[in-house]
Amino acid sequence: MNEEPQKHSVKVPSARIKPVRRVMRLVTGKPLRTSDASTEQIGVVEGLPALSLDAITSVAYGPEAIVVVLAVAGLTGLQFMLPVTAVIVLLLVLLVFSYRQVISGYPMGGGAYAVSRDNFGKSASQVAAASLVVDYVLTVAVSIAAGIGALTSAFPILTPHTVPLSLLMLAIITAVNLRGLGTAARAFLIPTAIFILGLFTVVIVGLLHPLGPTPEPFSDHALGQNIETVSVLLLLKAFASGCSALTGVEAIANGVPLFREPRVKRAQRTELALGFILGALLLGLATLASRFEIGPQENQTVLSQIMDASVGRGWIYYVVAIAIVVELGLAANTSFGGLPILLSLLARDKYLPRYFSLRNDRLVYSRGVWVLALLAGILLIAVSGNTNSLIPLYAIGVFTGFTLAQSGMVLYWRRHRPPRWKRRALLNGLGAFLTLVATLVFILTKFTEGGWVVVVTIPLCVVLFRGVERYYQNRARELAVNDLNEQQAPRHTVAVVPVMSPSRLTRDALTTARSLADKVIAVNVMFPEDADNARELQQEWIKWHSDTRLEILRTEYHSLERPLVRFVDSLVDNDERVVVVIPVLIPRHWYHRIFQGQADFTLSKAFTHRPNVLVTRSYFDLKS
Amino acid sequence: MNEEPQKHSVKVPSARIKPVRRVMRLVTGKPLRTSDASTEQIGVVEGLPALSLDAITSVAYGPEAIVVVLAVAGLTGLQFMLPVTAVIVLLLVLLVFSYRQVISGYPMGGGAYAVSRDNFGKSASQVAAASLVVDYVLTVAVSIAAGIGALTSAFPILTPHTVPLSLLMLAIITAVNLRGLGTAARAFLIPTAIFILGLFTVVIVGLLHPLGPTPEPFSDHALGQNIETVSVLLLLKAFASGCSALTGVEAIANGVPLFREPRVKRAQRTELALGFILGALLLGLATLASRFEIGPQENQTVLSQIMDASVGRGWIYYVVAIAIVVELGLAANTSFGGLPILLSLLARDKYLPRYFSLRNDRLVYSRGVWVLALLAGILLIAVSGNTNSLIPLYAIGVFTGFTLAQSGMVLYWRRHRPPRWKRRALLNGLGAFLTLVATLVFILTKFTEGGWVVVVTIPLCVVLFRGVERYYQNRARELAVNDLNEQQAPRHTVAVVPVMSPSRLTRDALTTARSLADKVIAVNVMFPEDADNARELQQEWIKWHSDTRLEILRTEYHSLERPLVRFVDSLVDNDERVVVVIPVLIPRHWYHRIFQGQADFTLSKAFTHRPNVLVTRSYFDLKS
Repeated sequence: MNEEPQKHSVKVPSARIKPVRRVMRLVTGKPLRTSDASTEQIGVVEGLPALSLDAITSVAYGPEAIVVVLAVAGLTGLQFMLPVTAVIVLLLVLLVFSYRQVISGYPMGGGAYAVSRDNFGKSASQVAAASLVVDYVLTVAVSIAAGIGALTSAFPILTPHTVPLSLLMLAIITAVNLRGLGTAARAFLIPTAIFILGLFTVVIVGLLHPLGPTPEPFSDHALGQNIETVSVLLLLKAFASGCSALTGVEAIANGVPLFREPRVKRAQRTELALGFILGALLLGLATLASRFEIGPQENQTVLSQIMDASVGRGWIYYVVAIAIVVELGLAANTSFGGLPILLSLLARDKYLPRYFSLRNDRLVYSRGVWVLALLAGILLIAVSGNTNSLIPLYAIGVFTGFTLAQSGMVLYWRRHRPPRWKRRALLNGLGAFLTLVATLVFILTKFTEGGWVVVVTIPLCVVLFRGVERYYQNRARELAVNDLNEQQAPRHTVAVVPVMSPSRLTRDALTTARSLADKVIAVNVMFPEDADNARELQQEWIKWHSDTRLEILRTEYHSLERPLVRFVDSLVDNDERVVVVIPVLIPRHWYHRIFQGQADFTLSKAFTHRPNVLVTRSYFDLKS
Repeated sequence: MNEEPQKHSVKVPSARIKPVRRVMRLVTGKPLRTSDASTEQIGVVEGLPALSLDAITSVAYGPEAIVVVLAVAGLTGLQFMLPVTAVIVLLLVLLVFSYRQVISGYPMGGGAYAVSRDNFGKSASQVAAASLVVDYVLTVAVSIAAGIGALTSAFPILTPHTVPLSLLMLAIITAVNLRGLGTAARAFLIPTAIFILGLFTVVIVGLLHPLGPTPEPFSDHALGQNIETVSVLLLLKAFASGCSALTGVEAIANGVPLFREPRVKRAQRTELALGFILGALLLGLATLASRFEIGPQENQTVLSQIMDASVGRGWIYYVVAIAIVVELGLAANTSFGGLPILLSLLARDKYLPRYFSLRNDRLVYSRGVWVLALLAGILLIAVSGNTNSLIPLYAIGVFTGFTLAQSGMVLYWRRHRPPRWKRRALLNGLGAFLTLVATLVFILTKFTEGGWVVVVTIPLCVVLFRGVERYYQNRARELAVNDLNEQQAPRHTVAVVPVMSPSRLTRDALTTARSLADKVIAVNVMFPEDADNARELQQEWIKWHSDTRLEILRTEYHSLERPLVRFVDSLVDNDERVVVVIPVLIPRHWYHRIFQGQADFTLSKAFTHRPNVLVTRSYFDLKS
């Protein structure tokens, strides 16, 4: 066993490190040791910006979603604002306590995926995983679009640049996350604090002593004659719409491994903090909305109306408004915390290619980060940065996950039967029922408005997982070593060296070739117009390297690889193993790369995937 | 010597050819043999669309350029339209006969570059080459922008898409040229015929019996009080501006090798045809402009006014107008015919990297085509597809080349002294003087309007050529074999095989490694969380492959290449040559590539440019 010696001192002269790579290093930072990992892990305080922004920022659109539905029934309908919110907060409490149990039961993270894999088996867990994937990607797109949307509302001059701005924001968030989540979480701490404290100020000031002008109460007349009565269906709809405020509650349970030890405790405390903040804000805002008799307005959000009435249009209003913009954008970060871990779990279960389970040298599951950035970028471009219609959709994925996690926990309690398990199972069962109702209402009311995309994508993801799983099963069978001692008959090895002219470069490559094989053949590809050169080379060769055979390969085509491939194939057909040694000069300076042709690249591509043909570059240093 | 056997039957199963590559093949066509080259070469008829569009289409802006200058002196000034044009046509005749001599003197092409290299030496030839390069790139950008500009004038709805349309046109022209010039020239034959015949119709109808309404004669009143008198300077300016009609006359001489044998005769005939067509059209249009007393107008070009007056706004007008749009766009093709050949000559003289002198398998100097497309694309994006200000600039480069070629020919006559050499030298001397005057007028009048860019770029190109030349000189010296029989002491070779688990893939790689080196070491990189796997691997290893040493490389970092590089370096330090054999599975289907990690790629990059380290992939076929 070989202990790795000392510190990092890889011997590459710094002048030879590519400039591009140096720039990337500036973005992503120095490599980290696994023992440094804890500095990249998070505690309760960083847990909120890292994994909870998706949930907390939903106060910006959750109350709005309820008010819009209830206002259809006029003032009578709006009186149900507080009761409906109370039911949603009750569901929130259920979910928070349920997910605290999920955290302790599944400390490796994965949330709904881990719960359903353990309690329902493969198919349900794949559905849960697929819905989480859809949800995470949509969250990034929706959050960034909402953030940039709020920005362009404030500065209409930026409106034509919505898509580039969205992509810029995506790029920044991706870069920060490639450095590692600790950095990201710390960077997002201050705006998160301003956002939370600001909204609490709004609620408290509004409850105790409103400073703003009392708004004009919502009038039924705005609706004309079509006031509906308050039906059960309407209340269900309001409930389901308001549930969009609960998206993101599951993210902490999915990302438990990101926390510092004792990670279960820290994650549970973060979940509790999230539940408290979100519940208190939702209830407070609903109370204020009822008190000020606020209804939906064309050009101002419900939250903005509440802020107006509570603190007036002073500096607090603007500070909180800016914090909302920033936080909506940063909410995308929740997905960057969750999806790469989920993908790594899927890869470990062989539902995705193995490389998703590999960390990069900053200990980040960077493939997952890139995939998320790519999919979200495509989505943002596809909808031109306008994802209004996507907001209700992604709740479908989230609530599918909720339902699976909750009902999975019911089975979990039945199996483990800890003290008071029946009461716990009852709570989870109630949560499962409520979230199932919400999911069905979502799917039914939104199916034609794009919900079908989610309904179609989830099974497609499951098909993908199955395909990957089958591939790995087949491969494991095919690669298995059946006979431990079976040995293949070793082939004879021939080295082939493409040469242009006698030079120190050529000689070095020939020496290298001789060390790899007993037989070395130098080859020169001769284009028709180069006949003179070839003759000259042959004459020089005899003087110079008479012990190595020189083959002149004539060709009718202007292609280096065509005659070489044919020549090498003829050797392989004679049961030889061929190693093609391509002489390459090490450039003295990075800008000398412009002198390098593509011959070495073309040749190694030409021989790709040929058994018994090996291609290697023999690097020659002019300074040696 | 090994004659290449039979026809192309390279043994790659077609299912394994990459889809991307198959699409590229559709665009570029099948590989061509050198003996097929003549089908890709051109005759006189194809010579016009292939190499003369730049010159011929300048009738669309040349007369305009003269009229605009002369109109400053009112009607009196416009009376000089015909005389000025006559002088320009005289210069054209001089240039045509001069370039016919250049063609026979320099049948390898290169035009001004070849002439100055032969008669003035290195520095002048590099200046000539640089001015040609600048000229070719500007021609592409200007022609495409002019073509798209004419299109968007016809369909204003397309105006916001100017840049994408320009790039699309560039892409189409690039693709056609990657197939080979023969295809390109044939594709452009019909619009060229319509363009030439259409304009001759306009001229002849206009001279014999105008069909359109007699236009209102140009009125001095439009100019207000500031009518200048006709000075020598004004006439010089009008002459210089009109000379923009002569750009492109040199392209045939630059591209002689593109012609079929007897290539000199064919190229000379094409030059003559070009001179006749261009001269006749210029004189005809100038006569009509004088006869109809046409002056500059804001919203209609001079050519369009002439066409109106001659054939009226009937179908002929529209057919010719469309042909002008198409031909302006296709004029860019002249550069694609000329620049890659020029770059290949520069590369043969070692003023540019060698790969510019290599043809691709369609016998096209494809690197030159790509470089031209890239530079023109950047230019089009940089000026947002609006190159009005560039049109007069590129004449600077062209006329610098003219002057060098003409004065070089004077020296040529003095050296060779054929019959009547003095008369010939006199003609070339006159041409040199006139083009020199035009060049100076261009530079002086356009310096502040962007001319400085050309004046700066040409010396920069020369510096580049010098740098490349020096690089090749140094390299030739450094690579020279001083001692024919000197042999390096062969190092001992060790093969290093990264392994994950015992499998047929691993075993195959180990067998391969054993055939390359006497000593084989299997290595496994162990991340801290994989300690269990590593222990398991070690136990299995003893059962399975006890004759090969297994090294477990522990690492603190999450990087595969870091510990491997260190391990390999320690071997190299012990005076061993190391060959790293990376086991790679051949995917059964192309879409199985998604399962391939980047490990092989990362590793070969990590060992790039290390002497005494060879990296090779050992491909294992599951079907074997």
